[in-house]
Amino acid sequence: MSERLERGKRWFDEVYGEGKSEGLVEMQTGLAQDLARFGIEFNFGDIYSRPGLTLAQRELLSLASLVTIGGLEPQLRGHTRGAIRVGCSPTEILETVIHVVQYCGFPKALNAIRVVTDQLIELGCEIPEPLGPQA
Amino acid sequence: MSERLERGKRWFDEVYGEGKSEGLVEMQTGLAQDLARFGIEFNFGDIYSRPGLTLAQRELLSLASLVTIGGLEPQLRGHTRGAIRVGCSPTEILETVIHVVQYCGFPKALNAIRVVTDQLIELGCEIPEPLGPQA
Amino acid sequence: MSERLERGKRWFDEVYGEGKSEGLVEMQTGLAQDLARFGIEFNFGDIYSRPGLTLAQRELLSLASLVTIGGLEPQLRGHTRGAIRVGCSPTEILETVIHVVQYCGFPKALNAIRVVTDQLIELGCEIPEPLGPQA
Amino acid sequence: MSERLERGKRWFDEVYGEGKSEGLVEMQTGLAQDLARFGIEFNFGDIYSRPGLTLAQRELLSLASLVTIGGLEPQLRGHTRGAIRVGCSPTEILETVIHVVQYCGFPKALNAIRVVTDQLIELGCEIPEPLGPQA
Amino acid sequence: MSERLERGKRWFDEVYGEGKSEGLVEMQTGLAQDLARFGIEFNFGDIYSRPGLTLAQRELLSLASLVTIGGLEPQLRGHTRGAIRVGCSPTEILETVIHVVQYCGFPKALNAIRVVTDQLIELGCEIPEPLGPQA
Amino acid sequence: MSERLERGKRWFDEVYGEGKSEGLVEMQTGLAQDLARFGIEFNFGDIYSRPGLTLAQRELLSLASLVTIGGLEPQLRGHTRGAIRVGCSPTEILETVIHVVQYCGFPKALNAIRVVTDQLIELGCEIPEPLGPQA
Repeated sequence: MSERLERGKRWFDEVYGEGKSEGLVEMQTGLAQDLARFGIEFNFGDIYSRPGLTLAQRELLSLASLVTIGGLEPQLRGHTRGAIRVGCSPTEILETVIHVVQYCGFPKALNAIRVVTDQLIELGCEIPEPLGPQA
Repeated sequence: MSERLERGKRWFDEVYGEGKSEGLVEMQTGLAQDLARFGIEFNFGDIYSRPGLTLAQRELLSLASLVTIGGLEPQLRGHTRGAIRVGCSPTEILETVIHVVQYCGFPKALNAIRVVTDQLIELGCEIPEPLGPQA
Repeated sequence: MSERLERGKRWFDEVYGEGKSEGLVEMQTGLAQDLARFGIEFNFGDIYSRPGLTLAQRELLSLASLVTIGGLEPQLRGHTRGAIRVGCSPTEILETVIHVVQYCGFPKALNAIRVVTDQLIELGCEIPEPLGPQA
Repeated sequence: MSERLERGKRWFDEVYGEGKSEGLVEMQTGLAQDLARFGIEFNFGDIYSRPGLTLAQRELLSLASLVTIGGLEPQLRGHTRGAIRVGCSPTEILETVIHVVQYCGFPKALNAIRVVTDQLIELGCEIPEPLGPQA
Repeated sequence: MSERLERGKRWFDEVYGEGKSEGLVEMQTGLAQDLARFGIEFNFGDIYSRPGLTLAQRELLSLASLVTIGGLEPQLRGHTRGAIRVGCSPTEILETVIHVVQYCGFPKALNAIRVVTDQLIELGCEIPEPLGPQA
Repeated sequence: MSERLERGKRWFDEVYGEGKSEGLVEMQTGLAQDLARFGIEFNFGDIYSRPGLTLAQRELLSLASLVTIGGLEPQLRGHTRGAIRVGCSPTEILETVIHVVQYCGFPKALNAIRVVTDQLIELGCEIPEPLGPQA
């Protein structure tokens, strides 16, 4: 195993939990496992491992990008779990979805925040109350 | 409740039916209800309430934009119901999906027209016959 | 020349002006002219020529779809010209861009409305005043 | 039936199997069948029937474009079947998904390769082994 | 002027500099100024003004979303200026673009980082050195 | 220099010409050079270097994906040059753009084919004649 793959697994497991990088590869079959491995090597070995941004910052940026693309439910759920693990608060996660509505439009944001909230509930997080209209 | 939120609810219910704006908020949990409220305040209180386009025009434009983005089934179904309620004919709704195929490509348009047709059938609308090839 | 191409040219010129369909083909060189021809045959011969929506409705739907995709300045300018020619008012055209902001986000809508307004000014249209905040 | 529709059906059935073009139309109801017919006439009668690219080349290009758009599962499954029928190998199909990850990002590519692999398995194809890291 | 618009202008000017919210409206002509005003009222009066995320966090999330959409050069430049003003470091800004490459693909990220770097240079920021390959 | 970066440079230069990988990095300044390096290491060292697809196949797939995303002119020009260098014919390149119109819509395809044709002319390629309507 290359140093880079090892580094990728270490950072992936740091975000998602011990042994989870194995799971990503095992979700794929045959040649597709190469693509999963690239995801670990490149996304985590090369990118997440860089200094300059904390893991908590990276997880919120990932969520912002995923909500903007739209429709990526498995990844929204995964990065919600990751964000909580690396210390983001439910408020920060949900505010991230609310923040990007101005760029991605309401349908993507509303569908995403439902998925994210459900995942937070599943994780046993306390869901913050709505703020209501500002004075 | 601000005048703007009230105006938003009034226009939302005008398009979707009495009391439906409450339903939109209740579909979300906790902080996410703020995003649903923004949807009512901004989309309906600020935008749908503007003069210059009729509600029927607005509903067809919404469908055109949603089909173009792709994959937004709950919104496609919702705006199909809204379009019928504000007086669009099934022909206008289906022709809107057909019209945008030139911009969004066939896969998005074909997936969308299946969803829209199913919703129209569910509403008890008579589905217009295909025109067939032009002479 | 097939009947379908002829029909396409007729509808294209109806929207954009006498002889403009020739211009679309001549903007392309060599094999690319086949793609321009498909645009006339399919978009105008098959789609625009269908009953069920007026040309004015179709032009607003085209604008809604183009703004949603983003970045298509030549087409935004072209369909703004077309929309005016088939009888849409500057208000309807500009309100169409404003309407879709809820789906496509502010950056695309703001960039598009600048292009559309400039084209309307170039056409000598009177630009409607802003409505300002609602009471 | 126009020559063009007939040509479209012939090419569609060449890619997907005898009589499959009828199935595409029958998946839609009423007016929506016009859109399915356009898909056959234009996509297959006009485009797939052109010389200059083989059917195998076209199927891989279709997959590249679909993966890039994201979320189009029925079309991914359909074109995987088509690609195998016109002589693409499972390796070429899977490598096409892997190739476009650099343009469309990991979430779309990983979701797509799972769908494509499942379809290949359903077709009884042997799934190629992962190559593993390069020396 | 409503409280909400005033709040929006205050937060807009906090991010972009004294009096800049006027500039945004003045970049538009006629009816389009309503859309610019909505941008200030909604994006800044409603969203940026919320607690739960700092302005520095919001600016990085905005950049992540804009890079993901692609092609929005004026907004990329504007939010780069905003990010510096609210205290993000050039490293955080550039790492944000690098971070989202895994979701949006290389072409969008490479085009965006060129625009962002140029804006940072124009602002007189010191551009951090490349890290080079990790050990 | 890692083996992977070296391999990336070798494949990049194979597609674009001797020494061109240096140029990609030098087009960027400071930290952004890391992103350019990732482009060489990952896109060319990891992906283009894989067996299973020829370089000519890969270049057409890259073009299909780029046209589908839309708006990426520098990359369209670059991959047109690459495609010619690795042995694709102008016909294959132009047919690739025509092929994906069914997925990405006419505006993106028409804008792209203009850019691609211009680049082919600049390279001194003979531009194939339009086929005209099929019998």
